[in-house]
Amino acid sequence: MVGKDPLSDVLWADFQKMDLREKARYLNHDGRPFHVLLAQQFDRHMLDELGTLATRIRRTAKSKSGMRFLAELLDHKRAMLTFSQPSTRTFLSFYAACQILGLKIAEVRDTSTSSEMKGESPEDSVRTFSSYFDLLIMRTPKSGFTEKTAYALSNTERPVPIINAGSGKDQHPTQALLDIYTLQRSFERVGGIEGKNIVFVGDLGRGRTVRSLAYLLTHYPGVKQYFVAPRKLQIGQDILDQLDQSGMQYEVCEDFAQVLPEADAIYMTRIQDEWDTEPGESQRIDTSQYHFKAEHLRQIRIHTAIMHPLPRREEIESAVDHDPRAVYWRQVRNGMWIRAALIATIFGREGEIRHYYDMNLE
Amino acid sequence: MVGKDPLSDVLWADFQKMDLREKARYLNHDGRPFHVLLAQQFDRHMLDELGTLATRIRRTAKSKSGMRFLAELLDHKRAMLTFSQPSTRTFLSFYAACQILGLKIAEVRDTSTSSEMKGESPEDSVRTFSSYFDLLIMRTPKSGFTEKTAYALSNTERPVPIINAGSGKDQHPTQALLDIYTLQRSFERVGGIEGKNIVFVGDLGRGRTVRSLAYLLTHYPGVKQYFVAPRKLQIGQDILDQLDQSGMQYEVCEDFAQVLPEADAIYMTRIQDEWDTEPGESQRIDTSQYHFKAEHLRQIRIHTAIMHPLPRREEIESAVDHDPRAVYWRQVRNGMWIRAALIATIFGREGEIRHYYDMNLE
Amino acid sequence: MVGKDPLSDVLWADFQKMDLREKARYLNHDGRPFHVLLAQQFDRHMLDELGTLATRIRRTAKSKSGMRFLAELLDHKRAMLTFSQPSTRTFLSFYAACQILGLKIAEVRDTSTSSEMKGESPEDSVRTFSSYFDLLIMRTPKSGFTEKTAYALSNTERPVPIINAGSGKDQHPTQALLDIYTLQRSFERVGGIEGKNIVFVGDLGRGRTVRSLAYLLTHYPGVKQYFVAPRKLQIGQDILDQLDQSGMQYEVCEDFAQVLPEADAIYMTRIQDEWDTEPGESQRIDTSQYHFKAEHLRQIRIHTAIMHPLPRREEIESAVDHDPRAVYWRQVRNGMWIRAALIATIFGREGEIRHYYDMNLE
Repeated sequence: MVGKDPLSDVLWADFQKMDLREKARYLNHDGRPFHVLLAQQFDRHMLDELGTLATRIRRTAKSKSGMRFLAELLDHKRAMLTFSQPSTRTFLSFYAACQILGLKIAEVRDTSTSSEMKGESPEDSVRTFSSYFDLLIMRTPKSGFTEKTAYALSNTERPVPIINAGSGKDQHPTQALLDIYTLQRSFERVGGIEGKNIVFVGDLGRGRTVRSLAYLLTHYPGVKQYFVAPRKLQIGQDILDQLDQSGMQYEVCEDFAQVLPEADAIYMTRIQDEWDTEPGESQRIDTSQYHFKAEHLRQIRIHTAIMHPLPRREEIESAVDHDPRAVYWRQVRNGMWIRAALIATIFGREGEIRHYYDMNLE
Repeated sequence: MVGKDPLSDVLWADFQKMDLREKARYLNHDGRPFHVLLAQQFDRHMLDELGTLATRIRRTAKSKSGMRFLAELLDHKRAMLTFSQPSTRTFLSFYAACQILGLKIAEVRDTSTSSEMKGESPEDSVRTFSSYFDLLIMRTPKSGFTEKTAYALSNTERPVPIINAGSGKDQHPTQALLDIYTLQRSFERVGGIEGKNIVFVGDLGRGRTVRSLAYLLTHYPGVKQYFVAPRKLQIGQDILDQLDQSGMQYEVCEDFAQVLPEADAIYMTRIQDEWDTEPGESQRIDTSQYHFKAEHLRQIRIHTAIMHPLPRREEIESAVDHDPRAVYWRQVRNGMWIRAALIATIFGREGEIRHYYDMNLE
Repeated sequence: MVGKDPLSDVLWADFQKMDLREKARYLNHDGRPFHVLLAQQFDRHMLDELGTLATRIRRTAKSKSGMRFLAELLDHKRAMLTFSQPSTRTFLSFYAACQILGLKIAEVRDTSTSSEMKGESPEDSVRTFSSYFDLLIMRTPKSGFTEKTAYALSNTERPVPIINAGSGKDQHPTQALLDIYTLQRSFERVGGIEGKNIVFVGDLGRGRTVRSLAYLLTHYPGVKQYFVAPRKLQIGQDILDQLDQSGMQYEVCEDFAQVLPEADAIYMTRIQDEWDTEPGESQRIDTSQYHFKAEHLRQIRIHTAIMHPLPRREEIESAVDHDPRAVYWRQVRNGMWIRAALIATIFGREGEIRHYYDMNLE
């Protein structure tokens, strides 16, 4: 059962003044996310719980009877996916996650066509969606829009949970979740995420993925983060300040080859030229040395996880795909499982899943 | 079970010559709508039945077991939504209504992309849709197209029910239904719709919503209708003639403030400038005095229902939203319930719903 | 259960060098299609089995309990429809077929919007889709793309079956299947397809439908094929060579009226001017004598099936629709049933369907 929307207890003016951690507290309810808007909402306990639940769902889904059990969990609920910014990958991942749990789905991929043309405010549009559905999954190019929406709905007769599926440049919390889940799985037999060296490579300044993941890694003692990028695409100082505050180790450098042997995970990223402020800006930066090539496979450890949020261009040579350390395709599947775990948690179904798992799969 | 398509007994030439009431008779079957094309199809008995059924569905849907019962009613049927004119609101409302009843859904939102390009006639396109599905829900900018389609299908091997989800300027029968259902609910404890003063405000000449609702209100003795609009946007004479024929009371006026204290329901509407015949036509009309503002709340009765078919622009100040008499958001939900009731009725499932309700909820 | 992807045993370079029949062998698995890419995959035994299964599904679907049985067969599977070339008809036919079998569906109708814009390779996009789904149904304007995709996936951790829903000018195997099923049904009481005269009319050079069907008819001894078209639109020599190799009888001619009395089936086709290499190319060809008119009904046999893959323009006068020999609308429904049969077969559910049918409908 979805609980009381915790946002209904705070004033918008007060909420806006809060920093991310304070905001995050308000988005959860009884230690469980109501809305999922910020990576900052997930503490270590939640990350562990969600990972465990995702694995239970993944294993339960291997049998027909397990799939049926899962598909009955939320078959009385309806989800709405509104993606005003295109993202087939994230869209389909959420879509499949909802299908696994039996949620009925409707979608609006382009919100510009209809009521907005007739002069309706975005708030009214979202409130309409919330009238018909029990969960809104939103992707929007406007930073802060999901927050504003969640707040607006929380003061109506029908507050429904909202999941941020990517908002502007700032947040993409479920991407960060799937990355953590991938790290959990990759290091399952080598002592977990604690104490590992995580190397980020490529466009670190504009990728919200890296920003969110760098934050979530502060929950894992002993992790050292490496930010490897051309100077113009380096990670923002605000992230480094966060790491300093959390007492995390990190290194900022330009030499990719040098850090390879130390890496436990290598997180490759795409040059996000869609955010260029002038045409050709990205092309003038030489990024050729920030590509992972087949020859690099000899320089990394036996357990090193090669990750990429995808889509990729030439950051990773396709010959690398067949190496068992290349986990980016598994990352894609992990996204589906962790999103299913997240939605099941929002609706309070984790106990039922654990029970079924204990009875049938342990 | 859907019965025999009643249109198969009449010639198209004869059907076209009929007035709306005669047509309406042909669209029903055994006192139940087969196709739903015209607001004129609903008599008082049907309006009462549909409202009662919508309420039963609404209450049944509150529990998981109730939702499951509903979702099994039509899980062996497939519905097709073809919306060649954009309307996210109506689309999602029908979508959710179908999901509640378990219908499997497919959609075509833009029919211009495919077979029409290849030179197929609209009649052939629709007949193709009817081949795969058991119910067609159509929105089209062409007046009369749904009628023509229903007729064409009725003489094939696979007549399937068609619901008009808005056709051109003329008809939007399920919008009128949801308005009636909202009035039924609003006046549940104050004696029902009979004898009430219903005030229509805004663009009354071009809004098919008002036209249909004004007609349906003739089924309620003692209702007085007020049409408040700038002269150029006033209600059509044909509607007033209908009211005269039915012996209904009405008043046509320009002064909004004056009628406020007498209103039991105030039906606000948007200036529909998409129908302007020359650019800027609507903008030259001063409509500022036809807005409902927070200050008006003090001038209306304790039970007055403030309605709006949405989307709204500035016709209703958003500060009004929090007043319990503002029922336009409830109207949105009502649309989903009454559409579910209508579809259940078309497929003859009202008895099962009543039975379940009597056993479990009374 | 889907078996081992047979493509994983062959090298791409070797596969490309094969002729269609050799390729076809590799796409099946244990005498059953794994991927469905080519009409050449279907031998006579499979065509008979699929037709029988389609009929069982069609009859089972007549009752609510039958629909429920069917909808539970694959309710633990998810299908993805990616149609980068518009085709509402084929899209909806597959959509309905999946719904009948209970598959959960997601769709991407325009793949140009998203990741491709971000520079992702088509292979990576498809691999992403395969991560979330258990079956891919693809329509693409690029000849050979589905083959390439199937091959690429077969060497990953998650090979999933791919159905070609039309690729470029070359193949549309499920259209050919539905045509065979329509012929099977049409000649059920007159001795089956063997020995019949099948007449193809219209644009035979550019229609992949005719090419595929002409091939499949080589499995039926004694069939004589007539290709009736203006010279510029005649059937390709490669098809005639195939018929020669198979020892099939055929006739190439320009006179439509003359062959009418001999025809057991008349397969009308549309002038496919979308493949014109220069503007107006098709319009300069007089095709008026290749139209089936109401007056022709008197010249054909009592059992002759008039077929058309649709959409039609003026190739068949609409007055012909009401004649019982006009089976093109039945063809549309047949497409849904045969596709359901095909998908059920890919997933190995034919035994369960036969068992249910024997218990409940025989």
